[in-house]
Amino acid sequence: MSDNTPTTSGSADRKQHTYCVIMAGGIGSRFWPMSRTARPKQFLDFLGLGRTLIQQTFDRFLAICPPENILVVTNDQYTALVKEQLPQLKDDQILTEPSRRNTAPCVAYANHVIAKRDPHARIIVASSDHLVMKEQEFHDVIRTALAQADSSDCIVTLGIKPSRPDTGYGYIQFTEGKSTVDPKVKKVANFREKPDHATAVKFMESGEFLWNSGIFIATAKSLHSAFALHLPEMEKKFDAGASAYGTSAEKKFIAEVYSSCESISIDYGVMEKAGNVFVVPGDFGWSDLGTWGSLYTHVPKDEQGNATIGQMVRLHDCTDTMVHVQDDRLVVLQGLEDFIVVSTKDVLLVVRKHDEQKVKQFVAESASEWGEKFV
Amino acid sequence: MSDNTPTTSGSADRKQHTYCVIMAGGIGSRFWPMSRTARPKQFLDFLGLGRTLIQQTFDRFLAICPPENILVVTNDQYTALVKEQLPQLKDDQILTEPSRRNTAPCVAYANHVIAKRDPHARIIVASSDHLVMKEQEFHDVIRTALAQADSSDCIVTLGIKPSRPDTGYGYIQFTEGKSTVDPKVKKVANFREKPDHATAVKFMESGEFLWNSGIFIATAKSLHSAFALHLPEMEKKFDAGASAYGTSAEKKFIAEVYSSCESISIDYGVMEKAGNVFVVPGDFGWSDLGTWGSLYTHVPKDEQGNATIGQMVRLHDCTDTMVHVQDDRLVVLQGLEDFIVVSTKDVLLVVRKHDEQKVKQFVAESASEWGEKFV
Repeated sequence: MSDNTPTTSGSADRKQHTYCVIMAGGIGSRFWPMSRTARPKQFLDFLGLGRTLIQQTFDRFLAICPPENILVVTNDQYTALVKEQLPQLKDDQILTEPSRRNTAPCVAYANHVIAKRDPHARIIVASSDHLVMKEQEFHDVIRTALAQADSSDCIVTLGIKPSRPDTGYGYIQFTEGKSTVDPKVKKVANFREKPDHATAVKFMESGEFLWNSGIFIATAKSLHSAFALHLPEMEKKFDAGASAYGTSAEKKFIAEVYSSCESISIDYGVMEKAGNVFVVPGDFGWSDLGTWGSLYTHVPKDEQGNATIGQMVRLHDCTDTMVHVQDDRLVVLQGLEDFIVVSTKDVLLVVRKHDEQKVKQFVAESASEWGEKFV
Repeated sequence: MSDNTPTTSGSADRKQHTYCVIMAGGIGSRFWPMSRTARPKQFLDFLGLGRTLIQQTFDRFLAICPPENILVVTNDQYTALVKEQLPQLKDDQILTEPSRRNTAPCVAYANHVIAKRDPHARIIVASSDHLVMKEQEFHDVIRTALAQADSSDCIVTLGIKPSRPDTGYGYIQFTEGKSTVDPKVKKVANFREKPDHATAVKFMESGEFLWNSGIFIATAKSLHSAFALHLPEMEKKFDAGASAYGTSAEKKFIAEVYSSCESISIDYGVMEKAGNVFVVPGDFGWSDLGTWGSLYTHVPKDEQGNATIGQMVRLHDCTDTMVHVQDDRLVVLQGLEDFIVVSTKDVLLVVRKHDEQKVKQFVAESASEWGEKFV
C-alpha cells in the first residue's frame, strides 16, 4: 500500500479519508400532508427540534469526518432546498440526480466522485430522513464499522436490534462472523424483505435477525469491486465519466448517463448478492420515520398515549392519538381514539392510525381532483 | 278608532302598519369556532347559500312589510356588521343595545320606538339567526298571526309541530282556542322550559305541545299593556324616553336607561305570565340552529349520513359526521363516526356529536390559555 493509505495507526489521518454520502432524493409521500413533493420530509423539522432531518443528519456526521467530506446526493428539484438548509456545503458537495433511479446509481455516482478525489476514501452512506436518538452509540457503531471496512474488501451494514416484530422494515440475518477486527461485527448470512407479522415474530425469537437501517460503510475500492461484480453495466457507465467528475463537464455527463441506469436499490442490486457483507448490531434509537406510526413511537406521549407536536393544541378524552400541527391554528380535539391528525397551512388530514397506509391513496385522489399542488 | 287604524279591509294599509323587529345581539357561542364574538352566527352564511342568516331573515320579511319597517336591534359592537350586511337599512332602522339584557328590554325598546312612529303598528319579533326552510308556509302562518293580533289585545306566538322529542327547545302547550279569527289559532295554556327526554316524549304523545320558535306577533298597543302589566318597572323606564325616540337624544337616553333594566327574557318576563297569548301551529322547516347537531339535521347528507359544507372535502369510511370547512384548505377525513369537524382560518375543532355541549367549555379554556381572539 502507498504511504497515504489509511492505516489503523493514525486516527486523524483516517478521519481525513472518511467521507459521508447523505441520500436526499426521496419524496416521503407517506408523511403527507406534512411531507410534500415540493418539500419532502428530510427538509422538515419533524420533531420540532429546530433542525430539519437532513440538518440533523449532517450535524451527526461532523464528529465522524471533516465537513468538506460530507456529500449530499439529491434530485434536481431539491438542490435549492439543500443549499438553503446546509449553507456550509460547497457546490462540489452537492451531487444532483437528473432523475430518480433508486439508490444503486446514486451510490455508484457518489463513489466515483469521491474515489477520484481520494482513492483511499472510506465512505458512509446514509439516508437524510432517518431518526437517530442516541448519537454517542451511533458514533461508536460507525467507528467499529469503519475499522471493519478498513480491514478487508467488504461492505459493512448497520443493523438494529429489533424491539418489536416490525413488518415495516427489511431484516438482516447474521451468523457468528469471521471478523478479525471486532467481535461485535457479525457476518451477514441473508437480507430479507419486509416480512409478514408471523415471520417477523419468528425473526425476533431466533435472535439472528436485525432491522436493516440502510446505513452502510465501505471503502471506495470495495464499492468499486462490488459494483463491478454485481452491477457491472452500471459501474462501467460511471467509469466512463472518470475525466468529468469534479469538473464543469460532470453535470453534462451525468445528465446523459444517469437516466439510462437501471432503477434498482443498493440492497437488491449489490448487498443481497455480495458474499463479503458484515453487519454491526447497534441500538442507537434509530427509526426510518417511514410512517406517522413510526414517528408516533419516537415522540413523547401523555398519560393517555397522545403524542402532540404543535403550539396551540388541546386534547379532551383523546387516547393513543398522534397530533401534528404545522400551522399556527388553535386545534381542539375531543373523543379521538387511535387517530392521526395532521394540520398544515393548506391541508387537514384525520386518519385512523391503523389505516395510515391509505394516506398514499388519499394523496393520489386529492391530486387528481384538486391538483398537484396538494401532492 | 281613528281613520288610520288598521282594519281587515285594506291589506295594503295593514302592510304599511306592519313592522318587524329582528333581534341580532346574540353571540352564538355554541357554534364556535365558526361563530365568534367578533362575528356571531347571524352574520355567517352557514349553509353556503350566499346570504348570511340575518340577510336571509331580512329577505324573508320583505313580503310581509315595507323594508323601511324592518328594524334590527343589536349590540353596539355589531352595528358595523349589520350596516355592512344590510346596507339598505337607514340609521333609524338599527337600534343598538349598549349592553346585553336578554330579550325583554330589547322588545320594550323596539316597541317604544315603533309605537312613536306608528301608534297602530303590528309588530313581528323574530330572531336573526334562525333557519326557515319553507318560506311560503312561513308567510301564511305570519299572516294568520297578524290577523289574530289585530283582532284583540293579545300576543300571538308561532309554534312548531314537533318532529322529534327534542330536549333543546322550549315547548308551548295549547288548548282548543277561543280565537274568533281562525280555527288554526290556538289558545296557549302553558310555556314549558327545555324538558328532559322522557318529558319531551310525553309532550309529543299528548299532541298538545309545540316547539316555541321564539317568534311572536302583537300590536304595539298590546305589547305596551303586556309590559305595563308584567314588567311595569321596565315599561316605565322606556316610557320616560318618549320624547327622545327617533331624535338625536335617543342614543344618550338608551345609554343611561338600558343597563339599569332587569336582564330577563320576553318569554319568562311576559309570555309565561300573560293570559292572552295565542299560538299558531306551523310547519315551515324551522330551526333555531342552536347547536351543530341542529344544523346537522337541516343540511343534506350522503348515504353514510355525512353532512359536508365546504369546497375541498373528502371523506373515507366516515358515518353520521358533520363537516364544516370555512377556509380554503383541502380536508381529508377517514374513520370518523358521529363527529363534528369544523375548520376555520385560525381554529380546528373535532368533537363527538353527542358531546357538543362541551364546546362552550372548550371556548372558555382556549380563551384563558391563548387569548380572547379565539372566542
